[in-house]
Parts: sequence; structure tokens; C-alpha cells
Amino acid sequence: MKDIKSITFIGSGNVATHLAKSLFNEGIEIEQVYSQNIDNALLLADEVQSIAIDNLININSNADLYIVAIKDDAIANVLHQIIDKNIFITHTSGGIPITVFEKNGFNNYGIFYPLQTFSKLKEINLLEVPFCIEANESQAALVQLANQLSNSVHLVNSEQRKKLHLAAVFACNFTNYMYAIAEDLCIKNNVNFNILKPLIRETADKITFNHAKDVQTGPAIRGDEKIIEDHISQLDDLINYQEIYRLITQSIVQSSVNGSQAKNNKH
Amino acid sequence: MKDIKSITFIGSGNVATHLAKSLFNEGIEIEQVYSQNIDNALLLADEVQSIAIDNLININSNADLYIVAIKDDAIANVLHQIIDKNIFITHTSGGIPITVFEKNGFNNYGIFYPLQTFSKLKEINLLEVPFCIEANESQAALVQLANQLSNSVHLVNSEQRKKLHLAAVFACNFTNYMYAIAEDLCIKNNVNFNILKPLIRETADKITFNHAKDVQTGPAIRGDEKIIEDHISQLDDLINYQEIYRLITQSIVQSSVNGSQAKNNKH
Repeated sequence: MKDIKSITFIGSGNVATHLAKSLFNEGIEIEQVYSQNIDNALLLADEVQSIAIDNLININSNADLYIVAIKDDAIANVLHQIIDKNIFITHTSGGIPITVFEKNGFNNYGIFYPLQTFSKLKEINLLEVPFCIEANESQAALVQLANQLSNSVHLVNSEQRKKLHLAAVFACNFTNYMYAIAEDLCIKNNVNFNILKPLIRETADKITFNHAKDVQTGPAIRGDEKIIEDHISQLDDLINYQEIYRLITQSIVQSSVNGSQAKNNKH
Repeated sequence: MKDIKSITFIGSGNVATHLAKSLFNEGIEIEQVYSQNIDNALLLADEVQSIAIDNLININSNADLYIVAIKDDAIANVLHQIIDKNIFITHTSGGIPITVFEKNGFNNYGIFYPLQTFSKLKEINLLEVPFCIEANESQAALVQLANQLSNSVHLVNSEQRKKLHLAAVFACNFTNYMYAIAEDLCIKNNVNFNILKPLIRETADKITFNHAKDVQTGPAIRGDEKIIEDHISQLDDLINYQEIYRLITQSIVQSSVNGSQAKNNKH
């Protein structure tokens, strides 16, 4: 196995930035940074003592690894344009299967997927970010690289990764939307949303050591129809929210074969 | 204003237990603990050097404050049975309006509502738990008592409390159900749900300093119809989840007048 000592980044967005800076701090050389916008490429390249390029033709073949960290729907097209098909190449996407590489003529490839939500403004401790790794022939090298960044490295095939991505929509995107609805209801009714934040944190903390279904609380799992009806009537000007309330409540009721798991919990 | 130095608890469940133990630790005397089940009353009474009773007739009038911490639908009936209507009495419920006391003949009453999800098994640091206070005449005494336990004490009237309670169903109960769906999808597809936990924590942390609607990520806010259709087709054996996926996605799309807030975020 050849150690990965130099990496070229294709992309300069949130994921590329977090990864490149962390890898640079681990002593990895960042060979080149590509972005179709040279200013964006320069911004990241400056931070990691690298060379900025804005044309895929200028990618050299010197790096031990190439990490494509761009939008899902741009990956295939960019892969197609890379000329040297003998480089070791990966992408960082949860949603794009590993077959995209073979389809575009590569023979040494893999996935280097950090399963986290990245914002440019917020620092993330990569040590706690799960890395999902898949590769056709250089798996050990990718795992070793991920281990340099994170304490949570997992071998995950494309089918599992697809399911993780779907599950993450519920656990992350839809959860955030529940927060957004709660905040909207608070604003509309002149209540301070901050009052709910400790509850939100505790709800997230609770599942660290419990199954979510075992700690379900609230009127739906208690079968408290009086409160449910009252809540639905309070939402009658907010049809979207009313439908969401009704559907999730119905689903919680159906999912509890019996209500016994609610007995030891009160919200 | 008379300081509250002794309290009787009516109820011995999660909320009563957390409050009684914390107040006892603050030097408050716990006069009596009532439960209709004497074993439960004894369990808590032993911990706080108090007297257990299982008949409301045996409640004495010695305490400075009476805290009713029982199920919402039992509150009115218990209040009705308490004989001395001149005691200073409160309940801990988010959902029951303050009018319940007047209706049952009391003249000095209030709400002492810790807005948190309590489990017997998990310790909670009450210092960070928001207390929502309302009272007809002894508000200052209740606020002072709450300040002994928590750094987050708020005056919240019954109408606002009702809205907070509704918002909490979305922010806590429905969020937990999103976790439960995600976990269920992982189990059904043989993927380790633990891989999603850092993402879940980060999603909750993110809204500490951001509006939830400004940090919405995922296929719905990006308008990524290809992924949305793919996700919906993956759920076709799980009708409930499919409907929830479709409805929340639709609502996220509608709620974003434009998708601009998604630009700086990637999940």
C-alpha cells in the first residue's frame, strides 16, 4: 500500500475547504485546487499553500489522490473532462454511486464521504465526523487517510450509502424543518423560541444511548386526542403545518403497537 | 413577599422527582409527597426526607407551596378533591391553563412549568432548563423559587404557554419521530444508525446561533427533484414514510420563496 502524501482538490466549496485545511494540517501536501471560479480556487489554495487552477486541462498527474468535492449533479461531467484516467480518484458525495468512475473511464477510484453538514461559517471538529469509505482497489490507503482525520471511519458500500443518505434526510433535513416550524409558530405568537432550545438539545442528546422509538413522548404516543384536536385547531390558518401535524401524529400512533414505551417518559 | 421554605408535592413521577430532589438540595423542606400509589410516594419521600401519603384528605396546610405534578388529564380532578382552598398552589403542566385553579375554588395559584423532557433514568441539569412562570398574586415568590433552580426563568402567560407547547410538539416530539424513522430505515437496510448521530447533534447545535430556516439543507431546499423522486421510490414499501417524505418536502419547497438560503450550506 502506498501512503497518500499529496492530494489535488477538485472543488473549493464547504466540504473541499474543511477537508483540505484539515489534511494540510496533518502534513499532507495539497498539490492543486481546481474551481471553475478562479477566485474561489485562489481563496482555498492560499490557505493550504497550493496552486489554484480553473481549467480541468491544467490538472497535473503528480498527486497521490484526487478528491472531487463538488455538487452531485456536476460530478459525472467533471469526471468526463479529466484526461488522465490512471489517477487515484474519489468523490465526497453521499448520493452518487461508485459506478460513476468506471463509467468515465477510471480504474482506481473510491468514495471519501464525510457524513456531516458543513457550513463555511461554522468550524467542525472532523475527529467526530464519520467517514464512509468505499474503493475498488485502494481501500486500505483511503481508510488510513480517513483515520488521520477522524475517529469514526466506516466501510460503507454504495447501496448502504444511498440508504444512509435517505435516512439523513429525515434525521437532519426534516428535523431542521421541524425546528423551523416551531420557530415560525413562536414568532407568529410572540413567544421566545430560545425557551425551546434546551429541549431541542436534550431531544438530540437522548438518542445517544436510547433508541428513538423508546423515548418518544408527546400527545400522539400518549394517545391524548383532546390535546391533538386542540393543536390541530390552533393550526387551522397554517394548512401545511396542520397536515404535517396530522400525518406525523397518525404515523406515531400507528407505529406504537402499544403505548407502553411512553409510560416512563413525560414531556 | 413571603419566601417559599417548604413545599408539598402532589405527584411522584419524573417531573415531581426531578423538582423535589433539586429543591431539597437547595435547602427547601419537602413537607409531604402524595401519590395514589403509596409505594411511589414512599420512593420519592425517602429521597427527600419527607412524608408519603396516598390520600388527598391527608394533605396538611403547613407547606408554603403545593406543586401538582401529575398527568394533564388528572389535574382538574385532583384540584377538586383538595379541601383547603387557601393554600398557595401551582401545577407544572404546559397544556393546562391557569383558569383551572379558579374553577376549583383556589384564590392563590400559579404555574411552575419546567420546559424540558424528563426521564427517570437520565439526569437533567435544571440550571439550563427554562421555567415558565405565571401567577395570579404571588408571582414574585414563584420567580424567586425558579431562580434558585435555573438560570432561565420566564414569565409566560397561559396563551403563550399553549403556543410553546404546540411548538414543542414539532421541535421535540416530531423531531424524535424523524430520528425514529431514520433509525428504522437504517435497521431495515443493515446500516449502522450511529453513523448519523454526529449529524443529528450538529443539526441541533446549528440552530443555537442561526434561524432554522436559514440553515435548511437537503434535496427539498435545493429543489433536487431527481434525488427526491429516487428517495420516494426507495420508500414505496413504507407508505407512511413515503407520505411524510412527500408532504414535508412539499412544505419545505413552498416555504422557500427562493432557494437562496441553501447556497452556502451543503449536507
